[in-house]
Amino acid sequence: MAGNTFGKIFKLTTFGESHGKAIGGVIDGCPAGLQLDIEAVQKELNRRKPGQSEIVTQRKEPDSVIFLSGIFEDKTTGTPIGFIIENADQKSKDYSHISDVFRPSHADYTYQEKYGIRDYRGGGRSSARETACRVVAGAVAKQLLNDIKINAYTSSVGNINLDKSYSELDLSKTEDNAVRCPDNGIADQMITKIKAIKKDGNTIGGTVSCVLQNIPKGLGEPVFDKLHAELGKAMLSINAVKGFEYGSGFHGTKMTGSEHNDIFNEDGSTKTNFSGGIQGGISNGMDIYFKVAFKPVATIMQKQQTLNKNGNLIEIQGKGRHDPCVVPRAVPIVEAMAALVLADYYLLNKISKI
Amino acid sequence: MAGNTFGKIFKLTTFGESHGKAIGGVIDGCPAGLQLDIEAVQKELNRRKPGQSEIVTQRKEPDSVIFLSGIFEDKTTGTPIGFIIENADQKSKDYSHISDVFRPSHADYTYQEKYGIRDYRGGGRSSARETACRVVAGAVAKQLLNDIKINAYTSSVGNINLDKSYSELDLSKTEDNAVRCPDNGIADQMITKIKAIKKDGNTIGGTVSCVLQNIPKGLGEPVFDKLHAELGKAMLSINAVKGFEYGSGFHGTKMTGSEHNDIFNEDGSTKTNFSGGIQGGISNGMDIYFKVAFKPVATIMQKQQTLNKNGNLIEIQGKGRHDPCVVPRAVPIVEAMAALVLADYYLLNKISKI
Amino acid sequence: MAGNTFGKIFKLTTFGESHGKAIGGVIDGCPAGLQLDIEAVQKELNRRKPGQSEIVTQRKEPDSVIFLSGIFEDKTTGTPIGFIIENADQKSKDYSHISDVFRPSHADYTYQEKYGIRDYRGGGRSSARETACRVVAGAVAKQLLNDIKINAYTSSVGNINLDKSYSELDLSKTEDNAVRCPDNGIADQMITKIKAIKKDGNTIGGTVSCVLQNIPKGLGEPVFDKLHAELGKAMLSINAVKGFEYGSGFHGTKMTGSEHNDIFNEDGSTKTNFSGGIQGGISNGMDIYFKVAFKPVATIMQKQQTLNKNGNLIEIQGKGRHDPCVVPRAVPIVEAMAALVLADYYLLNKISKI
Amino acid sequence: MAGNTFGKIFKLTTFGESHGKAIGGVIDGCPAGLQLDIEAVQKELNRRKPGQSEIVTQRKEPDSVIFLSGIFEDKTTGTPIGFIIENADQKSKDYSHISDVFRPSHADYTYQEKYGIRDYRGGGRSSARETACRVVAGAVAKQLLNDIKINAYTSSVGNINLDKSYSELDLSKTEDNAVRCPDNGIADQMITKIKAIKKDGNTIGGTVSCVLQNIPKGLGEPVFDKLHAELGKAMLSINAVKGFEYGSGFHGTKMTGSEHNDIFNEDGSTKTNFSGGIQGGISNGMDIYFKVAFKPVATIMQKQQTLNKNGNLIEIQGKGRHDPCVVPRAVPIVEAMAALVLADYYLLNKISKI
Repeated sequence: MAGNTFGKIFKLTTFGESHGKAIGGVIDGCPAGLQLDIEAVQKELNRRKPGQSEIVTQRKEPDSVIFLSGIFEDKTTGTPIGFIIENADQKSKDYSHISDVFRPSHADYTYQEKYGIRDYRGGGRSSARETACRVVAGAVAKQLLNDIKINAYTSSVGNINLDKSYSELDLSKTEDNAVRCPDNGIADQMITKIKAIKKDGNTIGGTVSCVLQNIPKGLGEPVFDKLHAELGKAMLSINAVKGFEYGSGFHGTKMTGSEHNDIFNEDGSTKTNFSGGIQGGISNGMDIYFKVAFKPVATIMQKQQTLNKNGNLIEIQGKGRHDPCVVPRAVPIVEAMAALVLADYYLLNKISKI
Repeated sequence: MAGNTFGKIFKLTTFGESHGKAIGGVIDGCPAGLQLDIEAVQKELNRRKPGQSEIVTQRKEPDSVIFLSGIFEDKTTGTPIGFIIENADQKSKDYSHISDVFRPSHADYTYQEKYGIRDYRGGGRSSARETACRVVAGAVAKQLLNDIKINAYTSSVGNINLDKSYSELDLSKTEDNAVRCPDNGIADQMITKIKAIKKDGNTIGGTVSCVLQNIPKGLGEPVFDKLHAELGKAMLSINAVKGFEYGSGFHGTKMTGSEHNDIFNEDGSTKTNFSGGIQGGISNGMDIYFKVAFKPVATIMQKQQTLNKNGNLIEIQGKGRHDPCVVPRAVPIVEAMAALVLADYYLLNKISKI
Repeated sequence: MAGNTFGKIFKLTTFGESHGKAIGGVIDGCPAGLQLDIEAVQKELNRRKPGQSEIVTQRKEPDSVIFLSGIFEDKTTGTPIGFIIENADQKSKDYSHISDVFRPSHADYTYQEKYGIRDYRGGGRSSARETACRVVAGAVAKQLLNDIKINAYTSSVGNINLDKSYSELDLSKTEDNAVRCPDNGIADQMITKIKAIKKDGNTIGGTVSCVLQNIPKGLGEPVFDKLHAELGKAMLSINAVKGFEYGSGFHGTKMTGSEHNDIFNEDGSTKTNFSGGIQGGISNGMDIYFKVAFKPVATIMQKQQTLNKNGNLIEIQGKGRHDPCVVPRAVPIVEAMAALVLADYYLLNKISKI
Repeated sequence: MAGNTFGKIFKLTTFGESHGKAIGGVIDGCPAGLQLDIEAVQKELNRRKPGQSEIVTQRKEPDSVIFLSGIFEDKTTGTPIGFIIENADQKSKDYSHISDVFRPSHADYTYQEKYGIRDYRGGGRSSARETACRVVAGAVAKQLLNDIKINAYTSSVGNINLDKSYSELDLSKTEDNAVRCPDNGIADQMITKIKAIKKDGNTIGGTVSCVLQNIPKGLGEPVFDKLHAELGKAMLSINAVKGFEYGSGFHGTKMTGSEHNDIFNEDGSTKTNFSGGIQGGISNGMDIYFKVAFKPVATIMQKQQTLNKNGNLIEIQGKGRHDPCVVPRAVPIVEAMAALVLADYYLLNKISKI
C-alpha cells in the first residue's frame, strides 16, 4: 500500500535510504528454474553507476549487488530473491546544512508534510539511489524474457533532439558514448551541451526513448491494466519523469483516423505502427516504442532562495557531486522498468485462457 | 489480476460488454457516512452520454445508473456499492458483418490472440462504453472529495490548440459548448473542424487538459505509487489515450534547473509551478495539472482494407453512429479517473503517520 | 481492502445487502474458453436455497442467478463475469422492530460501532444471504477444475457426530437426505435433533467436513499463502464459522512424530495421510480433507434480553423464518469456497516454474 | 502473489533460506513517527531463538536483527523498514545426506514437485527459521499497538492439557518456565513429557492459546476479510499448524443458540464471550481468544523409511539438533502473527467512515 512494491506476479519490493546502511529489495514471483547470470546483473548496475563518465555525477559508489536468497546453484528456486546494495559512504557526509532546509523542487517539503519526519541525508528515500534496486530486478526480469529485446537510448538533451525514428538507428551503438545516444554526431552535441551546463552549475532535462521488440502477442490486461498504462506508470514512477507517450503519442492527436489506422498485412502484422505495438491495451506483436520526459535535476550549483523549517526564506547552494543531466544514467533504469512490466505481464498472460 | 479493478482502498471493479445485458461495477472501500447525491452521479453520466450534441455519436442510450447496494437512506454504509447500467440496444444490432473481421487499430485482433474468443458485438469489453462505469464511480469519489476542484476541458482538436494556461481560462465555461473548451472562440473552431471531419467520414484526435485544485498536501506514495504515476496510469487506461504529461511535461525537458526549480514562498507555496503540484510523487498543495493525448477514433466511415479470421485481406467500412472525435465525451472520463485516484490517495494518506 | 474480494488471480468481488435490490458479484480472472453450464451453476445455488426442506428456513426466495457479462456463446471470454441475484422480498418485510436494536451475537452492534450507520433490514450486508454469490462463483470454479472432486457433508449436529473417516463413507449419498450427511442412520438422528431444536424455538451448531480429491501436486504458495492457510481463511470467512482443522487437526497435537509422519510409497503417495494432502503449504497429490465448525444460529425464537441504540436493555424475540441449524445449507458454501481457493491456486501454480 | 507478503496496509514481505547468507524482510506501511525500541524487538527474537532452554533445539544461532532502513533517529519515517538476520552457520553444515532424499512429512517432496528445484540445506525456504522475520515485524507491530495486550501461551503438549480458561490464569507467568505455560504445575508435567519424548528421539505436538485484550471496537472487514478469518490464516501459515479455533470454537458446535448467545450489558460489553470478541467479523471490544494446533515436528531421531529422488525407498534418521516439541518457541510467533493482523486492521479501520 505504501507504494514500495511494483508488479502483480513478478513483484519487486524495495527499501532503503540514500545514506542508511544499505538499500535493497525482494523479487517475489520469479519462476523457479531460471539460470541466472549474476555478472549480467552487476553489468546493468554498472550502467547506472555514478562516476562512470565525466558527464555524470562524480560520486564514487561501488554499487555491488549482494544476493541473499532465492538462488541455488545459480538457478532461481521460486522463493523470494532478496538482495542488498551497501551504501559505501553512509557515514562520511555532513548533511547538517540541509537538515532544516527544504530544497526547491525536491521532495524535502512534501516528505515533511506527509510524514512529519524525514531522513534528510542525501534525500533519504526520495533519492534516485533507490532506482539501483530497480535495475537489479530489471536485470533479472531481462533474463526471464531472453527472447525480448529491450533498448532504451537518449533521444534529447535540452533542445538537442535526435530527430529519427528508432528504426533508422543502430541501437547497438547506444553504449558507444557517454550520453547513450546511438547517433554519434548528435551524441557529441549532447555531451558538449551537458559539459557547458555543468560548468554553469546548472542542469538540463531530456528524453529517453525505448523500443521493445520480439514481444509475444497478447500481453496486457484490458481496461485498467492496459500494457501501456502499466508501462506509463512504471516510467512515471522514475525520479524526475514528467511525461510519457507511446506509439504516435502527442503527435497522434493531430492526425485523422484514416492516417492513423494501422492497416493489416495478411500475417496480422501492420503496415504502419502508430499503435506502438499495443491495441486495446494488449500487445499485437509489433514493436512497442515510447518516450519518457525527464525534467532538469533540481540540485544546481547556483545560489537559490529557499525555505527552512521555521518558515524563513534563506539562500542555499548545491554542494557535492550531482548529475548535470539525469538522462544518460536513466537509460538503464527505463529499460529495467520496462523489463519489470513485461515480465509481469508475460507471466500473467500464461493464465488468460484455458 | 485480470485488470478490471482500479484503486487500492477506494476500489472500483467494473464488468460488462457493449452489447451484453448490462455493464456495471462495484465500488469497494468508500467510507461509511457519505451523503450521496444520486442525481449528481447521473448528471456526470449524462456528460459522457452518446447523442448529447451533434458532434458526438448519435447513438441513443439512456445510460441510467441503478444502484443495487451500499447505500441506505441516501448514505453510504461502508459496504460495497454495486451498480449497473443496462444496455438499451443489446439485441437490436446486427454485428454479423464484423464477427470474423479484425478492424484496423481496434482491439479485435489482440483480444482474439489473447483469449482465443471474443464478444465481437460493438467491440465487447474493449468498447469505450465501459468508461460509463468509471464516470459513476468517479462521481461518487468527487462527492467524497467535495473540497477539491476537478476540472478537465478540451485543449486541442487536431491542430486547433488552446494555447493558454488553465490559469488564464474561466473553467466554469467548459460546459458552455459542445466541445467542452472553455474558450468559446477556440471552441467554435474545434466544432467546425469536427463537423468537417465527420462529413468526410473521418475522425480526429485531440487533447484533454485537467486541473486539480485545493489539494491537501501529502497525497501520494513515494517510489512506485507516486501520485502522478497513478494519475498517468489512470489516464493511459482510458480508451484511445496515447500520452500523459503533468506540470512542465515534455516542454520541461528543454529547460534548465535554474529555470525549472519552483522557488518557495514563506507559506510553502511556490512562485512558479513547473512541478505541477507534485514533488517526489507527493502533492505540495499547489494546483495539479496535466494533459492527456487522445488518438483519432479508429472507426471511420471510409473504406479500408483489413484482415479476417481466415487470414484474408478484405475491405470494410464503418457502420452506425460513431464519434468523429472522442475528446468532448472524454472530458468527464478524465475527471472521473482523476477523482478515483485522488479519493484513493486521500484515504491512503490518513494512515501515513501516527 | 474493504474485504469484499476473495482470491488473487481467480477473484470474486461481491456486493449486496439482504434487503437491497439485488446481491451480486464479479468474477475476474476466469480464463477464457471455459464452456460454462449455467444450469449447473443454478443447481448449486438451489442446494443453498432457503425453503428446500423442512429443517431449513422456510423463507421463499427464488435465488435465480442472472449473468450479465463475460460469457459469449456459452463460453467465458476472459473478461469479468458479472452476475446478480435479485432480492425477491426486498420491500415486503417490516424491520422497524429491529432498527434500533442490537441482537445478541449478531453483527448489529459491531457494524454500528465500525461504520456509524447500518442497513438493519435482515442483517444487511452481514446476512448469510451474501454467501449465495460465493456459491455462484464456486460453481464456475468447479467447472474450471472439472477433474477435481470437491465433496462436503454434514459431519455433526450438536452432539450427534458422524464418527467415520470420509474414506469409510459413500459421499455420493450426501444429497440423499435433508441434512446432507452421507450416513443415512446418522442423518436421521440429526434431522430429528434439528426438528426438536426448532420446536423449542432454539438453534444448534454443527460441523461440515470436506474432501478434495484428484488434486494436482504443487498447489499452494509457501510461507504466508500456504494452501491450507487460504482454505482456512476461506472457511472462517463463512458466516457462523468458529474453527477450522485439516489433516490430523487438533487431534494431531496429541500424536508423536513417529506416529504422525506419513511414510512414502515409491510413487510419492503416502501410506497414511495425517498431513491432509498438504506438506509445507503445498499439495502432495493425496486427498485434502478438513473440518469446519459452525456455531448455533444467533436468531432464536425465544425471548432474550438485549440492548438498543439508546443504551437500554430491552427484550426481543426472533421473528420470521430462520434456520434452526445452518449446517445443511452450509455444505454447498463450504464446497464453493474450497473451489474458489483451488481455482486460484491452480492458476497461480501455472507460473511457478519456467 | 508468490505468497511471501502478509498484510494489506501494514505489510511484511520476507525472504531467505535456512542456509543462505541471511534471512530478512521488509515492513512496508508502518506509519511514520513511531518511536521504536530496537532492544524490545531483539528481546522478542530471543524468545524464539534456538538454544534458549534444554527442551528446545540446541542449535546455536545468535539471531541478531540488523535494521537497514526506514528508521531515523529511532523513529519510523514512513518508508519501508528493511532488516536482515544473518545465518550464522550457513556454511558449516553438511547436507549432502538429504540432497536427494524427501523426508517424510516435510516439504521436500512438494517443493521439488512444485518448483523442480529446491535448496535442500536445512529445509531451505520451508524451514521454520523464516518465522524469525515474522517475530521482528510482529515486535514492530506490537509497538504500534501499545495499548493492546497480546499474550500467547502453551495450553497443551500431547495429552497434557491446561484445562483452564485464560481468565483463570496469571498470564504474566508465561515466561517463568521453559515451556511457556502460565500454570507452573502443568508446565512441569509438560517439560517432563518433552524431555522423555526427546530421549526417545521422538517429537510431540501441542497447542498454543492466545488472548488479545484492550482491542478497539470496529476492527475487521466484513465478508471475506473478517478479523478471525485473517487471524486464522495468519496462524495456519505458521509451520506445523493444523488447526485454528476462536471463541467457543469446535466446542461451540455442540451448543444451542440460547446457550451460546452473548447477552449484552448496558455498556455494550457482554455477559459471556462465546463470540470470542468478534461478531460478524468485527471486534466488539471484548477479549479475543483463540487456540492453534501444532503437529509433532517431522524430524525425528529414529530410523524411518523414506523416498529418494530416484524413486527408491531408503532408510533415514534425523541428524543434528531439532525441537522435540515446537510449541514453546511457537508462542512468540503466534503473538507476532496476531500483532501483524491487528496492526493491519487497526490502520484499515481508520478509513472505514468519514
